[in-house]
Amino acid sequence: MNREEDSSHTEHLDAFFHPRSVAVIGASNKKDSLGNVTFSLFYHGPFAGDVYPVSVSSEEIQGVKAYRSVRDIPGDVDLAVIVIPARAVNPVMRECVEKGIPACVIITGGFSEVGEVEREQELRTIINESDIRVIGPNCVGIYVPATGVDTVFLPKEKMGRPPAGHIGLISQSGAFVSAVLDWFAAVGLGVSKVVSFGNKIDVNYSDLITYLSEDDETRVITIYMEGLEYGRMFMKAAREATKKTPIVILKAGRSRAGAAAAASHTGSLAGSDRVYDTAFKQSGIIRTYSSEELFDVSKAFLWQPLPSGARIAIITDGGGSGVMAADALEDWGLVLAPLQEHTKEHMRASFPPYCTVKNPIDLTGDADIERYEIALRAVLDDENVDAIVLIFLFQVPTLGDDAVERAVALLQQGTKPVVVVAAGGTYTQRRVEELEAAGLPCYQTPERAVRAMGALCSHGAWRQKHSQG
Amino acid sequence: MNREEDSSHTEHLDAFFHPRSVAVIGASNKKDSLGNVTFSLFYHGPFAGDVYPVSVSSEEIQGVKAYRSVRDIPGDVDLAVIVIPARAVNPVMRECVEKGIPACVIITGGFSEVGEVEREQELRTIINESDIRVIGPNCVGIYVPATGVDTVFLPKEKMGRPPAGHIGLISQSGAFVSAVLDWFAAVGLGVSKVVSFGNKIDVNYSDLITYLSEDDETRVITIYMEGLEYGRMFMKAAREATKKTPIVILKAGRSRAGAAAAASHTGSLAGSDRVYDTAFKQSGIIRTYSSEELFDVSKAFLWQPLPSGARIAIITDGGGSGVMAADALEDWGLVLAPLQEHTKEHMRASFPPYCTVKNPIDLTGDADIERYEIALRAVLDDENVDAIVLIFLFQVPTLGDDAVERAVALLQQGTKPVVVVAAGGTYTQRRVEELEAAGLPCYQTPERAVRAMGALCSHGAWRQKHSQG
Repeated sequence: MNREEDSSHTEHLDAFFHPRSVAVIGASNKKDSLGNVTFSLFYHGPFAGDVYPVSVSSEEIQGVKAYRSVRDIPGDVDLAVIVIPARAVNPVMRECVEKGIPACVIITGGFSEVGEVEREQELRTIINESDIRVIGPNCVGIYVPATGVDTVFLPKEKMGRPPAGHIGLISQSGAFVSAVLDWFAAVGLGVSKVVSFGNKIDVNYSDLITYLSEDDETRVITIYMEGLEYGRMFMKAAREATKKTPIVILKAGRSRAGAAAAASHTGSLAGSDRVYDTAFKQSGIIRTYSSEELFDVSKAFLWQPLPSGARIAIITDGGGSGVMAADALEDWGLVLAPLQEHTKEHMRASFPPYCTVKNPIDLTGDADIERYEIALRAVLDDENVDAIVLIFLFQVPTLGDDAVERAVALLQQGTKPVVVVAAGGTYTQRRVEELEAAGLPCYQTPERAVRAMGALCSHGAWRQKHSQG
Repeated sequence: MNREEDSSHTEHLDAFFHPRSVAVIGASNKKDSLGNVTFSLFYHGPFAGDVYPVSVSSEEIQGVKAYRSVRDIPGDVDLAVIVIPARAVNPVMRECVEKGIPACVIITGGFSEVGEVEREQELRTIINESDIRVIGPNCVGIYVPATGVDTVFLPKEKMGRPPAGHIGLISQSGAFVSAVLDWFAAVGLGVSKVVSFGNKIDVNYSDLITYLSEDDETRVITIYMEGLEYGRMFMKAAREATKKTPIVILKAGRSRAGAAAAASHTGSLAGSDRVYDTAFKQSGIIRTYSSEELFDVSKAFLWQPLPSGARIAIITDGGGSGVMAADALEDWGLVLAPLQEHTKEHMRASFPPYCTVKNPIDLTGDADIERYEIALRAVLDDENVDAIVLIFLFQVPTLGDDAVERAVALLQQGTKPVVVVAAGGTYTQRRVEELEAAGLPCYQTPERAVRAMGALCSHGAWRQKHSQG
């Protein structure tokens, strides 16, 4: 049976993410070398298990006894991380198999991506004839903050590490992962498991999607994809996974020029973009068209419940932002909720006459937090409203420093999903941090917020149709 | 003759932006009141001319002798700023006309936007029967950092003020302007003249477009628009202006829901969106669909020359970003430049074999700045290349702290426009600040950078077709 067609084969993946012991094959004392950085990340980092350096040239690495081969290591090894030159990889892989190591990350490049097809074929044979699971080759591997597994060999001063959280990230591109992790670290967004699998000779999208959808720590599966080989298997895994966990994809190589570039980058046969589009739709996958959109959407899934419909209330203190949000609703198939008469009546009785009480609700530039509270309570209670786009222009003098605290207190009593728009400088940025700490996803523009809401609604509808219980 | 149809009537606009003396009508001692904040912005701010407080209730404002009417002010008044209640505006306007004041900003709301159509009609009659020019009513008015004119009454601790620079900004929405100025201040982006004209009873888009296109300080005209009344005149002004100065517009109210919202916001009759689209195209205006896109594009015009064609070279150290950039090229009608043979040959001879020397040029994850320099020189010299999308993943260990300095030194010798992609956290942010200080516009994603490049190319083509000399 073809290994890649066996999607039940994910139980061994635990060893990648929760290993009790790790062998770093190619560990080195040479400062800033790949083998040195990789060993340090495990040995000096938060990883709590045993770390064994393996080296053919050094007796010890950073003061730790080194082994010439994994076969010489006395204890069990759950995970091998390979950072030796490409020509030495296959013999070492045989030793890993002999040792009974269940999981192996091959960081080393120099396989099919540079035309070394035979080398990659030999590696494939070794893998197929054993039980070992492999991530890579030609990849940056794995990052799991909760267990301290970190094979991303970029220096910490140039690439920050995000905290433990709930985004499960899969990427075909290592560079993409490194930029994203760095950016997440800067904004404090947390990840559960991150995998960049490069040539993906063994562990593939389907394995990881299935695994992450069953992982309690992962609330959204976020994917950067260039190409896909096993379409049927992927769709099967994705259809099953999206019954519990949203999947958001950025598929690159969608244009002719991009597809050609993808072919020389990861050897991906991009295929017709329309085929991907159909496959994603039929699997309940949310497709996005830039990394910004990918993470805007993922952030909403992370923190907000799914709406039961697509009728949106917009609350704003700046009319222009309300107009732009209303425009964006139509782009994503959402509708301006037709507010109930008594909702409008209640607001009309409470607000100055120049406020607009029909949707978008415009509290105007002298809005204080009381006015927001009245509007928020009204739309939370209105049965015609499924979800809320909440726009704060914090620049107005009437919104005090307690605005976020009070809005959050009120919103936590409701169950309708909320996305927030807040654009501005330093003062606004502080308010945004408060909002996001309370689980309210914030966006710089109405368009980005509404796009995220569109994804919540679309996945909400998919789950209503496809989830059993 | 109808005032709004007379587009030659812009000479008086100087008084708005370079007044020698300002009267603040409605100046007040009441802390945090509109009249107090507005007076303070002139009196305690960088404005160097005379400032006269006008008040019917106080003899002096913040220690300065106040006048009961502008008619009592001994010297000339170039600009009147009106912050009194709506019912008192028209009589006071008559006094401004009597006094011979050339320019007046009416901050006060309470006109057609709340149904006070008669009041607005009376105001219009006063204006039409005189030579006075009016911005407003119902607006935040003007911000000109170079001369210290600042009627944007929001407190500085909540809304930062950007430095003097070269974006000319026109907005129908005051809230939009306040969020944008605050954001510009945070990122250090400078403005030449900012006008938010609310109900735009007199000074309108055409006046301002003509004025700003002739203004030496303004390199790009950036507009937030909800609706337009004098379409023919607007197109005439815009077609003339875009021969010298790019115009970038965000037109809100493009959907049915958005148009309805715009009608209650600024009373704009949004009209069919297709009509706007055609008008913009025929006038050489770049249309954008979010504030992010609006300023991404404006930033490119600010700092970069126009390309002579749409053949783009992409240089990257991360293959994925190159693929995404190539995808985005097609979205905006740009093409991957077919590199000359000797360009590729030269790079092939200089780079390791795993680098990609065809476009997108992939220097891979161990690229150092030498490799970038070789590639940059090659594409600057290649006659098949009109412009460059330069992607830096600064996370890679091989790119040193001098990367930006060296790239900038090289690029300053060339004349091809460049946009930069750089995504990441703290380290990358420092490099982005260096790049932007050198006039290289940076973007978080390939899509945003390419979109900005698309605007450069599109305006470049327009100018080739429509500029004489």
